[in-house]
Amino acid sequence: MNVAPEPIRWRGGTLELLDQTQLPHVVCYERIASADAVHAAIRQLKVRGAPAIGIAAAYGVVIEMAKLRTTSRTEFMTRLADICAHIAAARPTAVNLAWAVSRVRRAAEQSNAATVADLIAAITHEAEAIHAEDRAICRAIGAAGRPLITPDCGVLTHCNAGALAVSELGTATAPLYLAHGDGVPFRVYADETRPLLQGARLTAWELGSAGIDVTLICDNAAPRLMAEGLIDLVIVGTDRVAANGDVVNKIGTSGVAIVAHHFGIPFYVACPSSTFDPNTPSGAEVVIEERDGAEVTHFAAAHVAAEGIKVRNPAFDVTPHALVSGFITDVGLITPPYDLARAFHSRS
Amino acid sequence: MNVAPEPIRWRGGTLELLDQTQLPHVVCYERIASADAVHAAIRQLKVRGAPAIGIAAAYGVVIEMAKLRTTSRTEFMTRLADICAHIAAARPTAVNLAWAVSRVRRAAEQSNAATVADLIAAITHEAEAIHAEDRAICRAIGAAGRPLITPDCGVLTHCNAGALAVSELGTATAPLYLAHGDGVPFRVYADETRPLLQGARLTAWELGSAGIDVTLICDNAAPRLMAEGLIDLVIVGTDRVAANGDVVNKIGTSGVAIVAHHFGIPFYVACPSSTFDPNTPSGAEVVIEERDGAEVTHFAAAHVAAEGIKVRNPAFDVTPHALVSGFITDVGLITPPYDLARAFHSRS
Repeated sequence: MNVAPEPIRWRGGTLELLDQTQLPHVVCYERIASADAVHAAIRQLKVRGAPAIGIAAAYGVVIEMAKLRTTSRTEFMTRLADICAHIAAARPTAVNLAWAVSRVRRAAEQSNAATVADLIAAITHEAEAIHAEDRAICRAIGAAGRPLITPDCGVLTHCNAGALAVSELGTATAPLYLAHGDGVPFRVYADETRPLLQGARLTAWELGSAGIDVTLICDNAAPRLMAEGLIDLVIVGTDRVAANGDVVNKIGTSGVAIVAHHFGIPFYVACPSSTFDPNTPSGAEVVIEERDGAEVTHFAAAHVAAEGIKVRNPAFDVTPHALVSGFITDVGLITPPYDLARAFHSRS
Repeated sequence: MNVAPEPIRWRGGTLELLDQTQLPHVVCYERIASADAVHAAIRQLKVRGAPAIGIAAAYGVVIEMAKLRTTSRTEFMTRLADICAHIAAARPTAVNLAWAVSRVRRAAEQSNAATVADLIAAITHEAEAIHAEDRAICRAIGAAGRPLITPDCGVLTHCNAGALAVSELGTATAPLYLAHGDGVPFRVYADETRPLLQGARLTAWELGSAGIDVTLICDNAAPRLMAEGLIDLVIVGTDRVAANGDVVNKIGTSGVAIVAHHFGIPFYVACPSSTFDPNTPSGAEVVIEERDGAEVTHFAAAHVAAEGIKVRNPAFDVTPHALVSGFITDVGLITPPYDLARAFHSRS
């Protein structure tokens, strides 16, 4: 049986990362044997997606520390701090990356281990715990959304909130993988997701690899397919959910939500409860990253737009909470009226 | 002063076509000296857009017929029929192409010309009339839409309904060129328009060439820019308007209309009154062309999606008339409630 691809393999102390820069044409796992190698893999986007980056980084710390030949706890701690700082610097704005290496470091600091071997065991345990927790969160999201995937339904998704971005199953894709495992027949439509085409390169590939019936479309075609009656629900991921339920996600998400609303099609957001940010009152307070215009003017190697043309290239947009039918989370399906602070804090 | 680029130049009996396949990187007019050359230019999409194809074809007939060395009206007519058939076959589904060459042929057939030289004059006159009529239609559309372009407004457009597709000024772009000529300051946002990127390659280039303030965006970014308050109105072109006012246009248009409606932004469709099709009751009766999936899976030379992936690639969609704020036409601005049959037939 086909299953979701694993972005990170950890077997008996060896780490392998699926090189996502070569997808979908080459499926190649790269053996990672040093902190430098994991730093490079993160920097070069061979591993991507906040949870996956954090997991890879945690294992990277373990791999490098396991090489240390010392019996001094002090020397171990000094080296650990250096390695954590080095790996965390690979993508300075990735919150999960800093969080994961801090967790590994703290596990050593707070350990009562008598020997360096025991310290290695403690950080290995912590890295494996981070990985296992992420798997459990994805499984819980999948279970919460699984009932939405009914026989012969059509599901639209945007960007890649898939297995490739996390440990396994993904967030938006988790209900799909579980339903597929249960033998439910359904169709998925993957928006290609300009400008960086995560839908074309990653989502369509990973769902197809798992044997799910997936069709790639241009972002522009989604309204047409909805008009044709092919889409029964939308599931997307999110980078941040504001306190009022506004959803920050890949550019184009708000358009999908508005169009789905127009056609009366439910629009769901799948995410770990940790994505909820009680300190951001609404989407209006979120500063949207503006990325390089070359992502729009150029496509792979081809230069498609006129020289010197002005470009706007916001990376994310805000989907108003009023357009969200429900949040599919590791603490269950949360539907309107939203009281996210209570929903997340009382249950997690 | 910068002006809109001319796709077709006809000066003293010589024909030059702007090679649109090289845009926006190379601006090159190709001298067209034979029916074969115009056939090839149409087939290779060097000239594109229904009206522009028709005009180029009409001139192509004239260019080839002018070479004929005969004094026999019968021989002239036989040769004319052959050349018209040859040029019309360049793109068999292009209605304007067949229509334009038929008009030229009929002009000869219905002419009382005594000599072949007079017949040449008659078909030259007809080709020039087709060209002049198209210019007049675009000017009338421009005049009808001109009041919509107010100082400092932001206008979104989708695909290329620009000067490059017609004789000059374009349809959706005609109000913009006229307002720019009047010195009105305004901003235009051009959707890149996947899959074939007419917005990135053509619209952004032609407006920029004319000195208009134009910004290229991914189709996905339009809802975000509307949310930012940057868009005051939308103007698009159309391939066909059904009797009830439903609009068939480039894939993605209906999404733009739905999103504009959500934000309370007026959505206008600019078109010649000849685009109205009283024989199509509504958009539901229109068969939407499904194009090659490679347009989605590949981008220029780069293969971006997984091998063998399923693709949907509808070329057009239907925008329900309820989402159209008005039709900007050569017979004026037509606003709801729509009685298009009366509007077009009583005034044209």
